[in-house]
Amino acid sequence: MKRRSKFKSILGLVLVISLFFSNGTGYAVTLDQVKSNFAKNVIIMIPDGMSHDGVTLSRWVYNDGKALNMDALASGLVTTNNSDTAIADSAPAGTAMATGYKTQDKLVGVKPAKTTLEGAREVTEGDAFAPAASILEAAKLAGKSVGIIATSEIQHATPADFSSHVIHRNMYTTIGEQQVYQNMDVVLGGGRDYLLPDTKNSTEPLNKMRIDHENMQDAIKSMGYNFVTTRAEMLNTQSGKLWGAFSPKAMNKDMIKSDEEPSLAEMTDKAIELLSQNDEGFFLMVEGSQVDWAAHGNQTVGLISEIKAFDEAVGVALDFAKSNADTLIIIASDHGNGGISIGDASTSGNYSTLPIAYFTDTLKKAKVTEEAAAAMIDTERSNIVEVMKQLGILDLSAEEVETIKLSKGIDENGKAYDKTLVEISKVVSTHAHIGWTTGGHTGEDVVLYVYANSFENQLSGTVQNSDIALYAAKAMGLDLDKATDELFVPQKDLSKFGFDVTIDASDITNPKLVLLKADQKYLFEENKNFFISDGVKSTFNGITVFNGTQFFIPQAAIDMISPQVASTYTIQAGDVLWKIAADQHTTMEILIELNNLSNPNFLKVGQVINLPK
Amino acid sequence: MKRRSKFKSILGLVLVISLFFSNGTGYAVTLDQVKSNFAKNVIIMIPDGMSHDGVTLSRWVYNDGKALNMDALASGLVTTNNSDTAIADSAPAGTAMATGYKTQDKLVGVKPAKTTLEGAREVTEGDAFAPAASILEAAKLAGKSVGIIATSEIQHATPADFSSHVIHRNMYTTIGEQQVYQNMDVVLGGGRDYLLPDTKNSTEPLNKMRIDHENMQDAIKSMGYNFVTTRAEMLNTQSGKLWGAFSPKAMNKDMIKSDEEPSLAEMTDKAIELLSQNDEGFFLMVEGSQVDWAAHGNQTVGLISEIKAFDEAVGVALDFAKSNADTLIIIASDHGNGGISIGDASTSGNYSTLPIAYFTDTLKKAKVTEEAAAAMIDTERSNIVEVMKQLGILDLSAEEVETIKLSKGIDENGKAYDKTLVEISKVVSTHAHIGWTTGGHTGEDVVLYVYANSFENQLSGTVQNSDIALYAAKAMGLDLDKATDELFVPQKDLSKFGFDVTIDASDITNPKLVLLKADQKYLFEENKNFFISDGVKSTFNGITVFNGTQFFIPQAAIDMISPQVASTYTIQAGDVLWKIAADQHTTMEILIELNNLSNPNFLKVGQVINLPK
Repeated sequence: MKRRSKFKSILGLVLVISLFFSNGTGYAVTLDQVKSNFAKNVIIMIPDGMSHDGVTLSRWVYNDGKALNMDALASGLVTTNNSDTAIADSAPAGTAMATGYKTQDKLVGVKPAKTTLEGAREVTEGDAFAPAASILEAAKLAGKSVGIIATSEIQHATPADFSSHVIHRNMYTTIGEQQVYQNMDVVLGGGRDYLLPDTKNSTEPLNKMRIDHENMQDAIKSMGYNFVTTRAEMLNTQSGKLWGAFSPKAMNKDMIKSDEEPSLAEMTDKAIELLSQNDEGFFLMVEGSQVDWAAHGNQTVGLISEIKAFDEAVGVALDFAKSNADTLIIIASDHGNGGISIGDASTSGNYSTLPIAYFTDTLKKAKVTEEAAAAMIDTERSNIVEVMKQLGILDLSAEEVETIKLSKGIDENGKAYDKTLVEISKVVSTHAHIGWTTGGHTGEDVVLYVYANSFENQLSGTVQNSDIALYAAKAMGLDLDKATDELFVPQKDLSKFGFDVTIDASDITNPKLVLLKADQKYLFEENKNFFISDGVKSTFNGITVFNGTQFFIPQAAIDMISPQVASTYTIQAGDVLWKIAADQHTTMEILIELNNLSNPNFLKVGQVINLPK
Repeated sequence: MKRRSKFKSILGLVLVISLFFSNGTGYAVTLDQVKSNFAKNVIIMIPDGMSHDGVTLSRWVYNDGKALNMDALASGLVTTNNSDTAIADSAPAGTAMATGYKTQDKLVGVKPAKTTLEGAREVTEGDAFAPAASILEAAKLAGKSVGIIATSEIQHATPADFSSHVIHRNMYTTIGEQQVYQNMDVVLGGGRDYLLPDTKNSTEPLNKMRIDHENMQDAIKSMGYNFVTTRAEMLNTQSGKLWGAFSPKAMNKDMIKSDEEPSLAEMTDKAIELLSQNDEGFFLMVEGSQVDWAAHGNQTVGLISEIKAFDEAVGVALDFAKSNADTLIIIASDHGNGGISIGDASTSGNYSTLPIAYFTDTLKKAKVTEEAAAAMIDTERSNIVEVMKQLGILDLSAEEVETIKLSKGIDENGKAYDKTLVEISKVVSTHAHIGWTTGGHTGEDVVLYVYANSFENQLSGTVQNSDIALYAAKAMGLDLDKATDELFVPQKDLSKFGFDVTIDASDITNPKLVLLKADQKYLFEENKNFFISDGVKSTFNGITVFNGTQFFIPQAAIDMISPQVASTYTIQAGDVLWKIAADQHTTMEILIELNNLSNPNFLKVGQVINLPK
């Protein structure tokens, strides 16, 4: 029974994959209806934490209601729930969009242990927390160029989701190291500090420290990247691999950034310029990271200006796609945030009579973000009126001045407090009549935007966030499950290849997988793209992942050690004749499976065997 | 100059119409790309005031996250702004969806005076407050069956927008009368009281009174309708025209309605059954009216149960469309409302860890709406705990009991107050962790849902609310401008037809247009579908509209009095040869225009004349 069921699970997987793309939904364009392999290039753009109301507001304030670049691409909705909870955080939501697996809170690029909610894909027992290949990794495997862009630290959850596999989003050491050894073609964003060994006087939380003492900036350079730290250096790079780390931590918001930092649109433009030099095509993920942060703070100006900056990046991507019809653009936020609305409690009774300026006047006049304004208030807190003018508030009341003034100080217990930013943000919202319900994420579906090369290929309807990854994969003719199988062979399966398997945890900051075969030793360091044997480094496409329980290494690495013969096998199970495709991994699975059967001679190519009922 | 510019404006209109449908937006399916005349039947469904967050919540509470009927149809976004303000009320928003004209607050089915905002279609000077034909009227003119359904009074703004033309949404007397004489095939909803002459002791506001003393129930019956007032009577009607008035004012919310009232789904089903008996096809408007009212009250249970009821009506329409491929379904709310979010201030810090039950548990247990619960509290206010159990609240705190208890009483000034419903609604939202920002409408884009007979005809992208009407018209091969010209010839133009024109306002509650031609008198009562001459009633397709300034009557009525010869005229303007189509009205315009020219002989068919430069 046991044997059969495992074999059945392989067959089942084939069925699951084909059913997964079939869902009868009238004339929305479903995943099932989309053609396979219609796009050489895919660009996924994520305005993090963007509830739709902010888009409408940004359109009024900065475009007088005329269409934003993304507007014409609206084609449906995307659910945002995790595999087990209703309101997502970026780590699991981005994982769904990157890997096709809804997962659990904090997890980055790994499968969930709990799949209780609608839309969650089942995970095989024992597969919890195992890495799932991202669309970026699958594209790289297929020979495409790949890149990630963010205005946050590049180690932040969303870019991490596409380029790493860890069990907590805050593991910047691990995420950063995996990103470096992923050997991506373009990496642009913030987070320069997290590429350096941690210093003793670091103020970082423990899990963000580079406690392994490795210098990732050196590693980046030694891997042949152009490592740049300014906008000018970035713009001057014309070819080759590019790593831009433009700020110690997060980049500045677009509205207040200096000329030293590129805009999201400029980063997108440069990335496309470099990535598109590959004839095989490319995959690019672009995150408007700080839309989310502004929403958390209920900062109206911060929010809509970051949405505008994101939309300008969309414009750049669209320009490319319009002259390169083999390019698919998918845009979707990962979750809502803030519960923003145009209109608030004060407009309950008169909303329908209010001129547009009632909502936009203040916001149009704002020259800085709420954050920047808070930082501009002097120690004596004497310039509040002037600072608030920078935020478009020309009629600050005495009461508001007082509230902002008192928002920083020492409380009765001698404890310092600073609510300046909170109070400033409230004043802006009040003057612009913008409502907010929460400082946290919200659970609504977000808008799906698609630019495809024909409307037959433009996904529509209400899709799961995990469908984004599957759509991108289908568009490029890629198979994420196959990529996972190729990139992440679990440690527990390595003995099947004749290895003696141990973990060397002598350096706790850098555990190693040790494989022993025919008296030969192979060392796999976590997060690296090579193994060492006899002092010789052998590099592979992919990275070694340690999820705290077990290691995962690419099949390619195994094949380098003990090459497999790939071929085609025809197997009869009952009355059904199965022809197994000749890729190495499927072959390997079948090999393992059938070794346990009564007939050991099954391996002959083309042989037909009868499995027990 | 004057003559030329008027002629140019006619030619300009032709250009405007053709340009209107052309907008380059990549591979979203634009109005331009949609095929003409692809749908025999169109069903427009409007969940009034439905912000999208409520849909997601309704899906979780009633469907455990599984797709609602409407989910698969999501295909884009719809702007909701008026011609001059950012946040719409139902009257102008529904007018845009019905007529293709964004208009101003309070206006129903008439063009705006101010068109200052993006997306607003320009209105010719002097055309302000003139009626614009609705898609329902255009369909009726084309020989299709037509119907409207609402759970509000049928005279309420949204159903009124499709079936009447008045300058204030509260003019129930006029709206109701126009609806009756529109001679629609199916009318189902509430508002029975407004069909009767007003009584002296009525508590209605003045503008909702039937001050003209006409009995519309009698009129309905005399026009050959099956007039029904119960669900059973409605279900028993198998053919003919049907008017169902199921309640004195609004119908009950779906969750608490009795078996005497049909559900929105049942009304939709019956309407489709009757309307589809016409081989020429049909147009139907279905409104989920009370989604909006629940949102205004921040009543979570009321909201999501009304959304569910609306979605069940969508299911009925979909069932029909799936077996009748010539049917187009368009669903869009008219505006947002309430600023609802899944998650509130209390979840700011822990949103990502909360199980789904944290939001849905209370709501799943609720058996009645907040309104019904408020009505269940006894005079002594002793049963609050029991009543709130009906709303799913099993752990009402002592403080909450006290708040609800004290929410009704007499204040220090001896004035009675009753905030029971408000407080009850707050308690439900608090227990379900649902946020609200306002008791009024909100300005965000709403979701566009479309079921078309092929994805080439499925409108997508971000469209203007007025595009809904244009899309429905194009789908049925209809021309709204032509319908407006045919149905609403303005009083100021009637002298051109040789009429002496006066208004008889001797009965102020029932003003009449008096046309005199060759000593013959023709009386047009406002809101009626006939004129009287020599005591003889002549009925026409269309209604007489009086907008407070001037009358509008159908071209068909004019043609009954003085028939026009329709033909084709070819006119050379400068070097351009214009061939004017042979429809009666265009011909008439040209006739009038050219009468003023130097050559009075132009009227010969096929003659070529030179217009002055």
